[in-house]
Amino acid sequence: MKEFHVVGIGNAMVDILAEADEAFLAENGVGKGIMQLIDMDRAVELYAAIGPAREISGGSAANTIAGIAALGGRTAYVGKVKDDQLGAIFAHDLRAQGAVYETHLAPKTAHDETGRCIVLVTPDGERSMNTYLGVTEHLAPSDIDEEQMAAAEWIYLEGYRFDGPESHEAFARAIAAAKKAGGSVALTLSDPFCVERHRDAFREMIANDIDLLFANRAEIMSMYETDDFETALARGAADVEILACTESEHGAHILSDGQRWHAPAVPVKIVDATGAGDLFAGAFLWGLTHGHPLETCGNMGCVAASEVITHIGARPEANLKTLFRTHGLI
Amino acid sequence: MKEFHVVGIGNAMVDILAEADEAFLAENGVGKGIMQLIDMDRAVELYAAIGPAREISGGSAANTIAGIAALGGRTAYVGKVKDDQLGAIFAHDLRAQGAVYETHLAPKTAHDETGRCIVLVTPDGERSMNTYLGVTEHLAPSDIDEEQMAAAEWIYLEGYRFDGPESHEAFARAIAAAKKAGGSVALTLSDPFCVERHRDAFREMIANDIDLLFANRAEIMSMYETDDFETALARGAADVEILACTESEHGAHILSDGQRWHAPAVPVKIVDATGAGDLFAGAFLWGLTHGHPLETCGNMGCVAASEVITHIGARPEANLKTLFRTHGLI
Repeated sequence: MKEFHVVGIGNAMVDILAEADEAFLAENGVGKGIMQLIDMDRAVELYAAIGPAREISGGSAANTIAGIAALGGRTAYVGKVKDDQLGAIFAHDLRAQGAVYETHLAPKTAHDETGRCIVLVTPDGERSMNTYLGVTEHLAPSDIDEEQMAAAEWIYLEGYRFDGPESHEAFARAIAAAKKAGGSVALTLSDPFCVERHRDAFREMIANDIDLLFANRAEIMSMYETDDFETALARGAADVEILACTESEHGAHILSDGQRWHAPAVPVKIVDATGAGDLFAGAFLWGLTHGHPLETCGNMGCVAASEVITHIGARPEANLKTLFRTHGLI
Repeated sequence: MKEFHVVGIGNAMVDILAEADEAFLAENGVGKGIMQLIDMDRAVELYAAIGPAREISGGSAANTIAGIAALGGRTAYVGKVKDDQLGAIFAHDLRAQGAVYETHLAPKTAHDETGRCIVLVTPDGERSMNTYLGVTEHLAPSDIDEEQMAAAEWIYLEGYRFDGPESHEAFARAIAAAKKAGGSVALTLSDPFCVERHRDAFREMIANDIDLLFANRAEIMSMYETDDFETALARGAADVEILACTESEHGAHILSDGQRWHAPAVPVKIVDATGAGDLFAGAFLWGLTHGHPLETCGNMGCVAASEVITHIGARPEANLKTLFRTHGLI
């Protein structure tokens, strides 16, 4: 038995959540429903324009790890924060959920601050993300502990984390250490624009190293540069052992070894869509590392995603195991 | 017409909200349903013990001011934060709500940090508050802008703000400036233990300067050192022009000039009681400064309090004016 079910690597971020209407997005040049990278000046300007906000720890892979930890899975997380108040909040919330998080802190004297994401939630529950990466952009190969990677059944790589000067080398080091110890590697494509920025690197990694690929409809079509969803699914399924592709209210498609399953979405009233994909991945990985069939893993993913979109914030608030029982999954 | 309907003076705090059960409170020496002052060491220790949290700007008088501003009232706030990330969050959220907030920042080099309150919410919705005051304790007379006080129809003083070395002098300066310009002065007793700490100072202020006193049942009984609620109400009503005393699910009692009204509580499912008293005061003061009869002001207070306890966080999320319309108050 390995020490960790899943070790995640991603951008460590605190979410700053505020409500906004469509007019505000248009006036302030915020692209609806996507993630835009912004610099500190823009972050300050946008923050001054938004209404009252609340702060909740986020970060895509960190949300996934928090979900697995909330389910009782053994997890660790790798992502850089600064020795500042937001960094302390991020670290606390992950550890308080039960994840191992040995922060490689950027010092108080660092010019950049802990990363944050200004999430604007429109009345339809859609989230538009404006990300100031800060110190989390500078995760280096030296921040990857090879022993920790070797101790993981799965490592989970966040596509967003490919932005940044040394990210590719850091991921390569993590993958090599995990694979050498018999571990498996999962990747999430994160965002169609993230795929645009890193398509070649993703393609090479998917072909060579990825065992489980998470994507949504837009991401997988961008990845394989096709307008046809089925073509994209078929190509993804040919590249990896397991493909788990979400499709919003149409649920998720799981493809593996020539087989295919569909997990229906759980209909709920959407308050804030932030974290839906992250929690899908978290519940799926928890199921996979706890011996559940792929179809059940897909169903667990949809149930967990449905929980996280019923409230503000991208980490689960209800007891996910209880929900799995209610849905007859465990 | 004065520039401000209400100017509030209080402890500037960011709330750190987490769920906890009764056993956790007992194990960690947290008194249920009250506010305890803690030092930085205790804050660090308690924070390490609690589960995942979220951060929302709080501070009792700041919540009141945010409520009045949300209703469209002209407001300003006085309370000290540090030039750190939590200070920036506090300032942003108040200004984003429309309040004037000319922060007297403690510098980055200050030993203390921006104040925070670890709020533990039990399954019954009750909140147990653990307050690290930090720099907010050091609000000095020099932080009081006499012109701003003179520009207020009402100044609103937070009882909690009486803790701290120069607080009494600061309040005296504010009261003198407001009164000289024909303004009125409201005080909230904040907490029965706060009354214990400052009974003599409160008594003198109430006798000499206070026009409107806010309290809840426990606070008014502590103030007048009696076990009989009616006796306490009668004594309070004799001391001030208007007494507004809340009594949880029994609503609020308004006493003025020999008359008395009762405003019933609005029955709702309590998620987090934080801010109930603050929003009662905010809505009451908004009503008062907008020409509504005292009974209506009491009803507005109860409606606003009922909104803020249906969600996590101590500032309103729904449109309070719409709620007032629904209840036939405007």
